[in-house]
Amino acid sequence: MGTQPTRKGRPPGKRSDPRFEQVTAYIPKELYRRVKLKILAEEGEAGTPTDFSELLADLLKEWLGDP
Amino acid sequence: MGTQPTRKGRPPGKRSDPRFEQVTAYIPKELYRRVKLKILAEEGEAGTPTDFSELLADLLKEWLGDP
Repeated sequence: MGTQPTRKGRPPGKRSDPRFEQVTAYIPKELYRRVKLKILAEEGEAGTPTDFSELLADLLKEWLGDP
Repeated sequence: MGTQPTRKGRPPGKRSDPRFEQVTAYIPKELYRRVKLKILAEEGEAGTPTDFSELLADLLKEWLGDP
């Protein structure tokens, strides 16, 4: 037996994943409202981001010119 | 004399602007590092965002299909 306790419940998320970092930004409220609306409206459609973090990662990769 | 003190120093920023909202996301560390590098590397060039908040707003507007 090691020091790792048996994991219960759902798997660890991005918040506790050391490969992820919390980023903070200030954007216009109205812009953010429209973004949240679009994410919710398109939820479940193929190729659409499921949450704000995923959207952000997608957009940043594109900005960097990643394949 | 009102209750408003005379403002000194620099003007209020996005953090205290009620039209702006703080947003938080979790993105891969390595991705964020490369984004910060690119922002710094292109600093001062025409048409480039000056900070992460500005970049984010630009990318989100584009995602929404704003002109």
